[in-house]
Amino acid sequence: MLAVDLMTDERFAKGSWQTRVDVRRSGQGDPSLHEDYVAVEMPIAMVYNGISHAVMMATPENLEDFALGFSMSEGVLSEPSQLYDCEVKAVEHGLSVEMRIATSRLAALKERRRNLTGRTGCGLCGTESLEAAIRPVREVKAPPVSDRAVQRALGALQHFQPLQAQTGASHGAAWCDLDGNIRLTREDVGRHNALDKLLGALIAAAEPLHSGFVLVSSRASYEMVHKSCALGIGALVAVSAPTSMAIEQARAAGQLLIGFARNGRHVVYHRPEQE
Amino acid sequence: MLAVDLMTDERFAKGSWQTRVDVRRSGQGDPSLHEDYVAVEMPIAMVYNGISHAVMMATPENLEDFALGFSMSEGVLSEPSQLYDCEVKAVEHGLSVEMRIATSRLAALKERRRNLTGRTGCGLCGTESLEAAIRPVREVKAPPVSDRAVQRALGALQHFQPLQAQTGASHGAAWCDLDGNIRLTREDVGRHNALDKLLGALIAAAEPLHSGFVLVSSRASYEMVHKSCALGIGALVAVSAPTSMAIEQARAAGQLLIGFARNGRHVVYHRPEQE
Repeated sequence: MLAVDLMTDERFAKGSWQTRVDVRRSGQGDPSLHEDYVAVEMPIAMVYNGISHAVMMATPENLEDFALGFSMSEGVLSEPSQLYDCEVKAVEHGLSVEMRIATSRLAALKERRRNLTGRTGCGLCGTESLEAAIRPVREVKAPPVSDRAVQRALGALQHFQPLQAQTGASHGAAWCDLDGNIRLTREDVGRHNALDKLLGALIAAAEPLHSGFVLVSSRASYEMVHKSCALGIGALVAVSAPTSMAIEQARAAGQLLIGFARNGRHVVYHRPEQE
Repeated sequence: MLAVDLMTDERFAKGSWQTRVDVRRSGQGDPSLHEDYVAVEMPIAMVYNGISHAVMMATPENLEDFALGFSMSEGVLSEPSQLYDCEVKAVEHGLSVEMRIATSRLAALKERRRNLTGRTGCGLCGTESLEAAIRPVREVKAPPVSDRAVQRALGALQHFQPLQAQTGASHGAAWCDLDGNIRLTREDVGRHNALDKLLGALIAAAEPLHSGFVLVSSRASYEMVHKSCALGIGALVAVSAPTSMAIEQARAAGQLLIGFARNGRHVVYHRPEQE
């Protein structure tokens, strides 16, 4: 049985979030039975002061980072210190991330609930009006990121994606210093979740966010720029393509935006000094 | 200026949804200025009987298909005939897809509004409880899909993805017959949107959905299985990996699920006849 029983599952304690399935591989010759590893995707409720706010489909590792990163990048919190505590509970239908936050933020939370937006690659969300869909982006200062640093980080990225190596189904987000050294990484089946987990881990580690860049294994869409700018991150490098709105947002924020970062080449979509 | 002014933009009439930007390419030798094409991503409001229901970040082409496919795959409508008409309007902040539906569906719509789920790869959504997050999946009958048909469709897919060819930023969804001939395709920056557009186009074309399969250029996550099963589609083939919940849903629905479909090989994650 594939269903993950969290109450008894050892992986919940061990933090190993791939699961084994039997598959048939087709190719040269007859299909035959093999083992395969797939990434675990699970409903995870974000609960603030006892009120369930949103349910995310995500990989259930590094959930404390996810809670902090999500809360900050989505503007539920304006300061990390407004998150008093965070507890992850296995419940009947998935996981519940129960946060206690400053009561002053509850009003902002109610406002945000009316302003939820369907993201690119998202099936259904709850924003009711176009005016509410696009929030203003925070201005940032782009650090000097060299081509060499981008390529160095890129070359090392795969070694920091153990879930991806085993399942081929997850996205990675990495924090890199200006020499291109990868300092922190997080993974998730969802690219926004991987980024939120990284942002939360960076805040918890008190990393200086003005002197580095975020490298993501995915595309750069609107909300990847928005979320990273919300934390004051001045440079975003994506392995795949940016969308039109990601470029618009990077221009509005003053963020350095690089896409199609592959071995030996990458494309600069916005570098503030050029203007 | 990159921002797309829909009121005056010729592409809205022509249906050409990439946009040109100046970029610098890094690689061998000095970076130099080039032109590049990026996929357009835009907020699109889904409005039912004058009430704005959700805003999606999507590529603004084939929006009538999107409206019908989304409405059916998300259970807003139970029959295509419940959609009386659909008009796409360019408004200040994006596009408004204004649908007139049977009043009997408005109660279901209100219920669904309380059951919105954050999807994999989604930043923020509005489901308030874990119980509401996972809806029961519709049972389907898997058609006989041969390895040869999968490989044939796969080999042809790139020729049906003009937006992807130009921008590298979009997903494709294709409807294929049991010989592996691609009959219909749709593209979008979001994978769920590409699938919803395809589903809407299939309904409009009155394709027999029991005798073919859907091929998607992306991963297979929970909601890709859920949406295709909602329309009675018995087989889903994904170029990339499935997640654990996609496999669980395929098993529950009786859907044939194939992943990692690459040139010369693919992996069968669930084939109902095996059980």
